[in-house]
Amino acid sequence: MARTVLPGGLRVVTEHVAGARSAAVGLWVDIGSRDEPGFDPAARGAAHFLEHLLFKGTARRSAREIAEEIDAVGGDLNAFTSKEHTCFYAHVLDSDLALAVDVVCDVVLGGVMDPADVEVERDVVLSEIAGRDDDPEDLLADDFDDLLLGDHPLGGPVVGSEESVGDMTRDVLARFHGAHYVPSRSVLAVAGNVAHADVLEAVAAAFAHRLSGDPAAAAARPDAPAVVRAPADRLSVREDDTEQAHLMLGVPSIRRGDPRWEAQLVLSTVLGGGTSSRLFQEVRERRGLAYSVYSSATGYSDLGVLNVYVGCAPERLGTAAGVLRTQLAELAEHGITAAELTRAQGQLRGEYVLGLEDTPSRMSWLGRRELDGPAAALDLDEALARVRAVTVDEVAAIASELFATPVTAAVVGPYADVDDLPDEVREVGE
Amino acid sequence: MARTVLPGGLRVVTEHVAGARSAAVGLWVDIGSRDEPGFDPAARGAAHFLEHLLFKGTARRSAREIAEEIDAVGGDLNAFTSKEHTCFYAHVLDSDLALAVDVVCDVVLGGVMDPADVEVERDVVLSEIAGRDDDPEDLLADDFDDLLLGDHPLGGPVVGSEESVGDMTRDVLARFHGAHYVPSRSVLAVAGNVAHADVLEAVAAAFAHRLSGDPAAAAARPDAPAVVRAPADRLSVREDDTEQAHLMLGVPSIRRGDPRWEAQLVLSTVLGGGTSSRLFQEVRERRGLAYSVYSSATGYSDLGVLNVYVGCAPERLGTAAGVLRTQLAELAEHGITAAELTRAQGQLRGEYVLGLEDTPSRMSWLGRRELDGPAAALDLDEALARVRAVTVDEVAAIASELFATPVTAAVVGPYADVDDLPDEVREVGE
Repeated sequence: MARTVLPGGLRVVTEHVAGARSAAVGLWVDIGSRDEPGFDPAARGAAHFLEHLLFKGTARRSAREIAEEIDAVGGDLNAFTSKEHTCFYAHVLDSDLALAVDVVCDVVLGGVMDPADVEVERDVVLSEIAGRDDDPEDLLADDFDDLLLGDHPLGGPVVGSEESVGDMTRDVLARFHGAHYVPSRSVLAVAGNVAHADVLEAVAAAFAHRLSGDPAAAAARPDAPAVVRAPADRLSVREDDTEQAHLMLGVPSIRRGDPRWEAQLVLSTVLGGGTSSRLFQEVRERRGLAYSVYSSATGYSDLGVLNVYVGCAPERLGTAAGVLRTQLAELAEHGITAAELTRAQGQLRGEYVLGLEDTPSRMSWLGRRELDGPAAALDLDEALARVRAVTVDEVAAIASELFATPVTAAVVGPYADVDDLPDEVREVGE
Repeated sequence: MARTVLPGGLRVVTEHVAGARSAAVGLWVDIGSRDEPGFDPAARGAAHFLEHLLFKGTARRSAREIAEEIDAVGGDLNAFTSKEHTCFYAHVLDSDLALAVDVVCDVVLGGVMDPADVEVERDVVLSEIAGRDDDPEDLLADDFDDLLLGDHPLGGPVVGSEESVGDMTRDVLARFHGAHYVPSRSVLAVAGNVAHADVLEAVAAAFAHRLSGDPAAAAARPDAPAVVRAPADRLSVREDDTEQAHLMLGVPSIRRGDPRWEAQLVLSTVLGGGTSSRLFQEVRERRGLAYSVYSSATGYSDLGVLNVYVGCAPERLGTAAGVLRTQLAELAEHGITAAELTRAQGQLRGEYVLGLEDTPSRMSWLGRRELDGPAAALDLDEALARVRAVTVDEVAAIASELFATPVTAAVVGPYADVDDLPDEVREVGE
């Protein structure tokens, strides 16, 4: 791994991957949907909207030229926006490194944001939101975050709402871009068959003119409430004419970088992280209640969320919810066994190592660790050592702490209101 | 690449991947949903049901032990069933090769198929079907195949229907398994940091007792109708209370292994294969009609399907369908340009090379080419050479042939019946 900080503050981090024939190039910006409400109440959805708009053309390339240049070399050019990060990336053959760096930097920093394109992309984003609405599992995840996180800036969906996207102006987008998409808040991460010097040369050629300015001038992320507010409600239902009832149930948890992070990962793995997990074995293997059941732990810079999902026939939702709540209570009271700890540690080790075999995954690891700063700046060996160091007592401690909190639950399915829900779900809100 | 045919007919194909720390192990069986109706009318969904049931336990391992052994080493164990193939696979660290081979072979060949487990998995499969029904894009794809392929054995959904799964018996499953899941119809494909000799040793240790028998005794795939029947209807609507209208539109096409296969790939790429494609540029970039629009080419052993998908606001479906049909007509009449050919060739080259960087993808390539036989037995260099050899005239010829066939269209969305659809879609059925 090699790292250079350029004048203006752009950090360039690279990793040579032996055996790779490709290069994954990502320009990461320390910006996400959580930064929107503090910037401007009208900015809800701006980071994601910009992810669309910036591809519509730069001073040097039209939208069509951007697409054609990368398609012509067989590359993949795309972007994603999360609650705290935005990444524009290209995955190309190693010989096309310079082109990929040039296109990615040009798109992020040189977008012209033509007002006519704002109108076209507004429709595209609205279509994306409607597509999300047609997927009950995606919709449920947004409903659950809304409910659990309430007015916290992390609470709203990344894509914004139909209203906020409908009202989005070019002015808000341009101001949001100008304030945040600056070299001092950006990281260029490259992994693959590349040399650090070649990446630096490509960066210099691509946008030397942007590498000036005062790194200290970057807008800092505003301070957010340190804890999640206690929401008035802990249960929501969205009526939908679905075949399955979709349930997500969970609790606020710890931020990434918390010293207990790896203990929580072990907890989530034992609970619902694989086919040997308690939920998979009990819900699917033993009872055949559902095809899909799993748990998931998400960490943000100042808080986290631990949740479980199940999709099952509506007439079995009560039974399934009962099993989930029993499993959480069981973990809170008795923790996990030594055999479960050992297995979860092996599982996490494999997930880390196997998950970092392709160059885009390595690029993402590099980019995130650089953006997330000291608390998260682990290399793979450090991360694996932390997983190995977790003890049964640490897992029991965090299980008992997290599951002492009342759970929050969101449902999408054929229920007119909360009173329609089976008792095992309804009791969550009481 | 190394290849050994063992006594009994099991083919073992391996590839050493430089730089990899993992091994991907797949046991491929030359069986899929298309083989079900010819075997027994009650077998619709049997191949997919077996994909579930075989994980429920073998003579040597319970379902829990299967899950725990692979989770403990951080591996990923799963399976998928398609219309012509079934694959059970594990992705593990290279040091766990022997375990992975043992577990995968044990699961596929040693499943006990306990009657009680048939009942539990029946519910799980029904839950999977209900989950598919909650995803309009997945449901649409099955509706489209039903309509286009009609009574052809490739026509029905891989998962079967609620009825066929509800009525499935252990007897049908056991007979289907006994007739088809035999070494002579199987390929063990392994890619990663492995040596061919080590794989052979692991196979011998894992199931030497199964490697006898007469390879010629394997049930051959029954002859299927060589052409798709002309269906009475070419338009279907499934009323669903969705935000978006989901449209799939396409034509019967060529089988894989057809000498024109690569010309058709170029055609599909130019039509809707990337962000520089005609559909993406016209439907999304220029008009903002939809977030998701693409084309896809699928090849089976005796026929193929070429189709396009768009998801858009219901009030824009007519416009979108008009654009799709105009684009097909344009290609049928004028073919593609030399610049489009060059770009599509570059794009396909990149997709092949970048798509084969991880060991599971390489394992899949190895397994499929071995199962698909001489017509498809290309290595990467041969496949790339065929793409490079495609000419503008070949693409024009196949475009004019394919799009001379009347198109078939399926819709999922807020439409009570065909008469509710906009003219541009309704005309397809006339």
